[in-house]
Amino acid sequence: MVSVTVNDVGPRDGLQNQPKILAPAERVALVRALLKAGMRHVEVGAFVSPKAVPAMAGADEVLAGLANGEDNGAVFTVLIPNYKGYELATAAGAKSVCMVLYGSDAMAQANARMSREQAESATADILKQARTDGVRVTSTIAVAFACPFDGPVEPSLVEDIAGRFLELGTDELCIADTIGAANPRQVRSLTASLVGQHGPERISCHFHDTRAMGLANVFAAVESGIRKFDASIGGLGGCPFAPGASGNVATEDVVMMLEQMGFDTGIDLDGLMHASELAQELTGTAPGGRASAWLKRYLKRTGN
Amino acid sequence: MVSVTVNDVGPRDGLQNQPKILAPAERVALVRALLKAGMRHVEVGAFVSPKAVPAMAGADEVLAGLANGEDNGAVFTVLIPNYKGYELATAAGAKSVCMVLYGSDAMAQANARMSREQAESATADILKQARTDGVRVTSTIAVAFACPFDGPVEPSLVEDIAGRFLELGTDELCIADTIGAANPRQVRSLTASLVGQHGPERISCHFHDTRAMGLANVFAAVESGIRKFDASIGGLGGCPFAPGASGNVATEDVVMMLEQMGFDTGIDLDGLMHASELAQELTGTAPGGRASAWLKRYLKRTGN
Repeated sequence: MVSVTVNDVGPRDGLQNQPKILAPAERVALVRALLKAGMRHVEVGAFVSPKAVPAMAGADEVLAGLANGEDNGAVFTVLIPNYKGYELATAAGAKSVCMVLYGSDAMAQANARMSREQAESATADILKQARTDGVRVTSTIAVAFACPFDGPVEPSLVEDIAGRFLELGTDELCIADTIGAANPRQVRSLTASLVGQHGPERISCHFHDTRAMGLANVFAAVESGIRKFDASIGGLGGCPFAPGASGNVATEDVVMMLEQMGFDTGIDLDGLMHASELAQELTGTAPGGRASAWLKRYLKRTGN
Repeated sequence: MVSVTVNDVGPRDGLQNQPKILAPAERVALVRALLKAGMRHVEVGAFVSPKAVPAMAGADEVLAGLANGEDNGAVFTVLIPNYKGYELATAAGAKSVCMVLYGSDAMAQANARMSREQAESATADILKQARTDGVRVTSTIAVAFACPFDGPVEPSLVEDIAGRFLELGTDELCIADTIGAANPRQVRSLTASLVGQHGPERISCHFHDTRAMGLANVFAAVESGIRKFDASIGGLGGCPFAPGASGNVATEDVVMMLEQMGFDTGIDLDGLMHASELAQELTGTAPGGRASAWLKRYLKRTGN
């Protein structure tokens, strides 16, 4: 069986978009529920300004609370917005960081108050330091298909950025459809080109479900050879105050589809449903995966 | 631009699974809303026992009420369960019928009280008569991937049935994932094989969204060259009394995805949203497409 890795970004991308702010101990409990289901890659927080993103305050406490989990081989990644974030994260013990690159200038400005080039330069600096420090770096290209401000993003721009950061030695290069605007033909085309040029080993994808095409996009990418995906437990994410905003593809839906297609994720669906229920309990707003009604019946039927 | 045809089965597959029974005039109004959006293929009813399926009573009145619409080039298909159904349908003026074949014996028994072979024999007889009568026939292979009673269906069986009925001259051969059990890898494999053997002209696909993989399956099939899909306005279908049951893929989601991938459906999304709202108004239970929140914002934003 071919393995596919799923990285749960719910405790970061999901929770930062929820109205209810969870305490670090609650976030640790959610991560632990994911680990119990067999998940080995989790994005557990962000070292960003607690004023700008209050839901991510106490990321150091989350990392401290998970110290044992990491001993079991799990990779806990934290998002960092800049070099200062890198210093804070590594001081708190982070061994894996995610830095954001951009497919558009407007999004770089809106998200990080930098130009696209400044974000690239900052990431290059972090990569250099991280090699010395033995820290793992994911470079995520946000709005890799379309920007809410600047519109469609040229695939050639994304391929150029991806090529440069793979060359610079990023451990992972993540293609992110931040606003859920991509269609599976675009995804198939871009991912096939990237895998053709660089191989699949260091490339991953990150999809949102705004236009209901999340799973179609995962399928399109897996057909191109992509073997690592971000997803969010319970479909956490989006913003309940923005009509139509939608979260990441739900981890349970992605794992179900991959397993049914014959891939090995190493993740237990029943354990994932427990984590999803915990996410819903803690936040009060997580929608749950879209196949959750079916999954509940299925897991009951087979005696799990 | 490559054309893809979408056949709305909401007025049949959708409405027959709703708790609220609509009068023929209401069903005509729903079909007219679909025509207004540019839809040219609609499954408008079924000539089945009104005792067994009360929601489909008065299919003759629906056909009569649509006589003008057909003059504008629309294809109105009605489902028939057997030869008697064919006679009733054609007596009521039907010019296009859909007959059901089966991927399993248990489903044939449960749905039509026939063996799989009996359903095939009845369909062959109908096909012969329909050629004489100038009536269009769609042969749908139900439970083409999995049966709720007998489990997984061998692709070779479906290929065998499909080959025989294409040979017999069916105007359309529809591969139906009746219970929403297929994954996109299975769909890709089966449809690629069928298109490779027979060309895409007479093959269509019908997906349900039970496991949230409906759009992924449409994408998988379109990648194989399939150019006609069933879908249901507002995601009508499933049964509100059966937890986890889910309707057909929503027409508005399918049209949106196809159009965004650069295909031409000839269907107007704004008109489709009006039809979807009418479906919700009439039934009180139609969920609406899964991307409807996004679509509403999008259509408003672009001034439609």
